[in-house]
Amino acid sequence: MYLRNCWYVAAWNYEIEADTLLARTIINEPLVFFRKEDGTVAALQDRCCHRSAPLSIGRKEGDAVRCMYHGLKFDSSGKCVEIPGQDAIPPQACVRSFPVTERYSWVWVWMGDPALADENLIPPAVAHDDPNWIFRSGSIEYAANYQLVNDNLLDFSHLTFLHPNSFGVGSDWAHIRPKVTRLERGVRVERWLPNQPIPNHIRGVTDCELLDLWSHYDYLVPGVMVMYSSSYPQGTLDKFNGGAPTGIQPITSDVTCQAITPCGDEQSRYFFSWAPNVHAQAGCSDELADGMIAIARMAFEEDRLMIESQAHNLKMAPNAKQVAIAFDNALSQMRWVLDKLIKEEAQPQLNSASVVA
Amino acid sequence: MYLRNCWYVAAWNYEIEADTLLARTIINEPLVFFRKEDGTVAALQDRCCHRSAPLSIGRKEGDAVRCMYHGLKFDSSGKCVEIPGQDAIPPQACVRSFPVTERYSWVWVWMGDPALADENLIPPAVAHDDPNWIFRSGSIEYAANYQLVNDNLLDFSHLTFLHPNSFGVGSDWAHIRPKVTRLERGVRVERWLPNQPIPNHIRGVTDCELLDLWSHYDYLVPGVMVMYSSSYPQGTLDKFNGGAPTGIQPITSDVTCQAITPCGDEQSRYFFSWAPNVHAQAGCSDELADGMIAIARMAFEEDRLMIESQAHNLKMAPNAKQVAIAFDNALSQMRWVLDKLIKEEAQPQLNSASVVA
Amino acid sequence: MYLRNCWYVAAWNYEIEADTLLARTIINEPLVFFRKEDGTVAALQDRCCHRSAPLSIGRKEGDAVRCMYHGLKFDSSGKCVEIPGQDAIPPQACVRSFPVTERYSWVWVWMGDPALADENLIPPAVAHDDPNWIFRSGSIEYAANYQLVNDNLLDFSHLTFLHPNSFGVGSDWAHIRPKVTRLERGVRVERWLPNQPIPNHIRGVTDCELLDLWSHYDYLVPGVMVMYSSSYPQGTLDKFNGGAPTGIQPITSDVTCQAITPCGDEQSRYFFSWAPNVHAQAGCSDELADGMIAIARMAFEEDRLMIESQAHNLKMAPNAKQVAIAFDNALSQMRWVLDKLIKEEAQPQLNSASVVA
Repeated sequence: MYLRNCWYVAAWNYEIEADTLLARTIINEPLVFFRKEDGTVAALQDRCCHRSAPLSIGRKEGDAVRCMYHGLKFDSSGKCVEIPGQDAIPPQACVRSFPVTERYSWVWVWMGDPALADENLIPPAVAHDDPNWIFRSGSIEYAANYQLVNDNLLDFSHLTFLHPNSFGVGSDWAHIRPKVTRLERGVRVERWLPNQPIPNHIRGVTDCELLDLWSHYDYLVPGVMVMYSSSYPQGTLDKFNGGAPTGIQPITSDVTCQAITPCGDEQSRYFFSWAPNVHAQAGCSDELADGMIAIARMAFEEDRLMIESQAHNLKMAPNAKQVAIAFDNALSQMRWVLDKLIKEEAQPQLNSASVVA
Repeated sequence: MYLRNCWYVAAWNYEIEADTLLARTIINEPLVFFRKEDGTVAALQDRCCHRSAPLSIGRKEGDAVRCMYHGLKFDSSGKCVEIPGQDAIPPQACVRSFPVTERYSWVWVWMGDPALADENLIPPAVAHDDPNWIFRSGSIEYAANYQLVNDNLLDFSHLTFLHPNSFGVGSDWAHIRPKVTRLERGVRVERWLPNQPIPNHIRGVTDCELLDLWSHYDYLVPGVMVMYSSSYPQGTLDKFNGGAPTGIQPITSDVTCQAITPCGDEQSRYFFSWAPNVHAQAGCSDELADGMIAIARMAFEEDRLMIESQAHNLKMAPNAKQVAIAFDNALSQMRWVLDKLIKEEAQPQLNSASVVA
Repeated sequence: MYLRNCWYVAAWNYEIEADTLLARTIINEPLVFFRKEDGTVAALQDRCCHRSAPLSIGRKEGDAVRCMYHGLKFDSSGKCVEIPGQDAIPPQACVRSFPVTERYSWVWVWMGDPALADENLIPPAVAHDDPNWIFRSGSIEYAANYQLVNDNLLDFSHLTFLHPNSFGVGSDWAHIRPKVTRLERGVRVERWLPNQPIPNHIRGVTDCELLDLWSHYDYLVPGVMVMYSSSYPQGTLDKFNGGAPTGIQPITSDVTCQAITPCGDEQSRYFFSWAPNVHAQAGCSDELADGMIAIARMAFEEDRLMIESQAHNLKMAPNAKQVAIAFDNALSQMRWVLDKLIKEEAQPQLNSASVVA
């Protein structure tokens, strides 16, 4: 069961060039993405209505795509506009098209009822061309259900144990619990960690030996996280009494945008970017941005080993006992929110009833 | 569901040499083929009746084959004739044998009731040693159901789209529909294409810039195609008014014999030969035959990519809509014929009833 | 269905060093093995009780193991002793532990009710440090159910057919049947083969051209075999009238310890050792021991090809006919014994009832 009435990240915008036919499977649905002459992106079912051949190994012809098995041609709405060897085109000759839009350097696709596609539901993020940041980005595939990746990103206590070689953070990540707030379509996680050693990605940019770290992110359905992190001289946490720091220049400042998209039940695609802030990051440079994303890639491979092993164990024993711990707070709430939205979608009256009540 | 009472192509005859034990799985049944001392081929179940070890990794001993796990020996009828360590051989100690015959350079096996094995049901083809042709041949495996390969060969409109780099034919293949005639055990496809550019496999053999092409084939159950193609000066089509050309020397002339054999539900073996005619093909030579089969191999790899992608899509969405098009005519009739024969085989009375009626 | 109340060989003792976390799946249960500070081995479920991550990619900390996903720490009894970020540890926070012991150079694990774990049920074998033998050992995995490997080792008629290149024994192995005695937890197999050619592993150690061979082994649940083989001058068989030879110095003498452990339904691990006797083997030396194990490894790869092919055939046709032969005697009795014990375990009253009756 997947939430269908939501925007999934399908690709980085730079993955779809003028001539690209990009195949992506999302919630078990094969899709093909391509750019129209006006530069906007179209998304069609990647399965010809004739004999199920994938359009993504076809040919882009202007705003249309031609299946290169028997030559059926579909416009960007999915309507078949040419069938070689015959003049009449039956009305059922079409493939499904999907609402698609570009925002924040991502291509988003709406997998549910097109009539409900509402761009206001796109979670906020930061685009690569924002001049305040120097972005680097990428994506990898995990052979695991997307919820296991959501879980991973909603409990950063794992940084201490799983990523000592990559991120190299201190042990407080595993002991000081963040503030977690449930949102309508996700959860907010905020965290102050005082007197922290310098993690690897900003090693050398400051003479301080210890920093107060502040990080906060919203994690929104189906699996989009935008986290801002900044560090300050020791004592800053006390000054703000645990609240968000304002009106003070940080020593370091970065943002990461991440999205988890379910391909199939046991396959997910993980999109990530990371960027130091041009104005607020000590030593901000292209080289620093390069170094940061290299560290992130190393960390995400560490995550992959763990998450895929976990998925393997869960596949062998789907009903294995799961003992809850305090750090599960954020991920439990996220699963609850997602579950609730999926149930409401399956029985729309549930939602309206609760509104009326 | 497969048609069992029919002849399947199991191998090229040259694949079974004097000492060969050839393992082939056909309609999910593991078989072992070997040549007896008299040169004829035997086919046994490739599964020892003792503990299911494959006989194909055993040893040929004269007209018998010995399982090399515990040494049971079977004659070419499948009867166990030796059990090491004991004198008595229980009557149930046997493996199934299958009617098998060689014709047209192919080894054919009958997978149904041996009592019904009728060599008159072997579709006609052309043997490699026919002095009128210079044959080249081969086989490849497709990870797809055999019916998808049948479909491929019954709609040559795909030549235009899928094979521009290999066969390099013109676009009329996708626009001029052939004449399709249903046969008792298959379909006949006949096609005139006037004013055609020279396809790659005969490039350079003629000074003509355009040719009238005539090709025709019978496609017979379970999946055997023998296609004759010839080309003529422009105007020949008009001269014969769309009928078969007779009493006229072609510029080029070739024949291809092809057979699709289901291994399992998602695996098929594709046997193919191609031969220019010694008397009627301009520039006929060993080199031309070599060049033709090289082009065919390239094309069949193009087919493989498409058909396996199609099979993958169908596996993910077995009930996906399939919109019929005019070019489906031949393949739809072939599927209808095959389906009818399979149904009749399952309920033999259906057939006799229809005969009586 | 597996016998749970028995000792399975999990590893050679040298596979678990001071810092090792060894992952092994036994009867579909993922386990992690490690050595405590006192040198004894512990075995825990290899699945953290929190979110199912494998402990085997965690960290050994003294006598405990820490999950390196979120840091839960388990003592060697499986009790969770630390959950980062919280003080209280819920009582259900634990992983299952398994009785484990070392004997005969093997690490044994009891997969059933710990209260029933009885070390007297460990089958006898010979340890590598026994000064009477020069041991070499190893293990390989078979993609086959363990019972097929048990079968293999209970019918050595296959030596003649499957291993002419490795062991190189004569054909009498396939024709002279051994004496088979059913034991409470297995079968005993005893065999005299007179006038045998010298097999490959002892080629060159004696001037005799033919030997009388005596070998005997007990094969005990779940799949442990200890076989003693010795050879004598021709005529020795007659001297002892088919009984065990006593009070006579053999020309050659060796022992092999072997154990088959089911990993999953289609995967088994095969542990094997082989050792010439220091006092009773002509030409006994390290080099001879090296040569013997090299021959054994070659033979077990021959077994692997056969057994995995057999498993493939059985998977395709699970209900294929199996004709019994005389040489099945030992393996049939072993399957009967194992089956009986499994049934008794599932319905414990069966056993006591039969005792009362």
